[in-house]
Amino acid sequence: MKTRRSDRLIDMTRFLLERPHTLISLTYFAERYESAKSSISEDLAIVKRTFKSRGIGILETIPGAAGGARFIPSISEEECRDFIGSMMTEMSEQDRLLPGGYVYLSDLLGRPDVLRQVGRVIARQYLDKQIDAVMTVATKGVPIAQSVSSYLNVPFVILRRDSKITEGSTVSVNYVSGSSERIEKMELSKRSLKRGSHVLVVDDFMKGGGTVNGMKSMIEEFESELVGITVFAEATFEGHRMIDEYTSLLKVDKVNTLDKTIHVSAGNYLEKVFGTPSK
Amino acid sequence: MKTRRSDRLIDMTRFLLERPHTLISLTYFAERYESAKSSISEDLAIVKRTFKSRGIGILETIPGAAGGARFIPSISEEECRDFIGSMMTEMSEQDRLLPGGYVYLSDLLGRPDVLRQVGRVIARQYLDKQIDAVMTVATKGVPIAQSVSSYLNVPFVILRRDSKITEGSTVSVNYVSGSSERIEKMELSKRSLKRGSHVLVVDDFMKGGGTVNGMKSMIEEFESELVGITVFAEATFEGHRMIDEYTSLLKVDKVNTLDKTIHVSAGNYLEKVFGTPSK
Repeated sequence: MKTRRSDRLIDMTRFLLERPHTLISLTYFAERYESAKSSISEDLAIVKRTFKSRGIGILETIPGAAGGARFIPSISEEECRDFIGSMMTEMSEQDRLLPGGYVYLSDLLGRPDVLRQVGRVIARQYLDKQIDAVMTVATKGVPIAQSVSSYLNVPFVILRRDSKITEGSTVSVNYVSGSSERIEKMELSKRSLKRGSHVLVVDDFMKGGGTVNGMKSMIEEFESELVGITVFAEATFEGHRMIDEYTSLLKVDKVNTLDKTIHVSAGNYLEKVFGTPSK
Repeated sequence: MKTRRSDRLIDMTRFLLERPHTLISLTYFAERYESAKSSISEDLAIVKRTFKSRGIGILETIPGAAGGARFIPSISEEECRDFIGSMMTEMSEQDRLLPGGYVYLSDLLGRPDVLRQVGRVIARQYLDKQIDAVMTVATKGVPIAQSVSSYLNVPFVILRRDSKITEGSTVSVNYVSGSSERIEKMELSKRSLKRGSHVLVVDDFMKGGGTVNGMKSMIEEFESELVGITVFAEATFEGHRMIDEYTSLLKVDKVNTLDKTIHVSAGNYLEKVFGTPSK
């Protein structure tokens, strides 16, 4: 039975949203909806227009009978700005302050609405880059990596500080933890990353950059290429930072354990991605 | 400017998909699209019909001017069956066999397409239950918890075997690991779960059930309630299993390290959820 246009538009939207960065052929849609390719082409033009005007993303359409469509998720500058602003407010809440001047973030990085936006915002930065895998380190980077990976539609790999039998043989690297100046070790399963991959590194928090630097070494061990580094938040760091090229959504400027205040500002994301100053 | 119906349907679909289990008022949509509530009601009826016929989920519509719509993600029995079948095939691949008879799963649990379906399938089982949080243990349960949490639109919390300063004060429980019969410890940040929560436990793999049993103890420590336990895969276990009430999507029946075969069958999910035998 032929499907009505309204039904097609709804199902097509859902179908494309669930398969970002994947070319879906006109033929596939024509069969799915038992409709003519010309009607499908018209549908795609409507979807494209709405995705663009609503800042949902870019629908690349390849014309002709052999053509199709590919959905590239994006997010508008305004939405990025709103999201970073709302995180600044939430992260500045007094009761997030932990002993030692640490900031509690686990609740934010366990909230589906926050993770969805983190994923969209970070994926936005790399939408025209070739990325084969997202890399992070256990445990708190995992939700960020997963969300970014779902918008880029590539797998994510997790480095671990402890060795697990269920990972099979691993490659390990040593790195200097910037904040504690200790030598630490991270491992990655040999099977998890192909040689020659283009890798995006993400993490929840960066201080001295030691962990991120360890991930860079791991990428070299796998004869792969680093595409970029984006962290949810960076802390102002007094010492020598081991990483100079990175993006942060947020910046924890100052933590005062005496009067219990946390000062959070926007990171360098907005400037790097939209060329506009952070504030 | 008034929005056309086709544009409304596309944006509305996206908007609802991103906010499962959330009531969106007619008034909100009417303002968003500068359209009459009567038009919005008609739109929602169309979306509802398509979501149902395509097995996307249930659109609960609350009639009247003060009404609105709430999207409950679901998945058809056929799609669940297809997904479990495809995982059976992938998990039986010879080269997943690790020393000690372990099965390598990390690649599957790092693939966005797999995680999306795992989330939909598990959320399907609990769509009419009150759930306030999804609980898992680091590291490999995290991607499953995150995906389920995004479809149920509730936060997830992560138990850890190591103590981290960034978690603040924690509650710890001891538990007996069923497979190794060792006493182990897990911690959960005090801030991460409210008393009286309804908690869904998920994990990647269950053997003796010791870890899951530890999560049950943790739920008691937080004076909260266990709603259910669902694991991605269970292993046939010779000894005394500590958990009797659980759901599994897959079952690793037999691993033969000599002739290098892994036999995987469907878990008890299909029978529990659809009342149909697994095979």
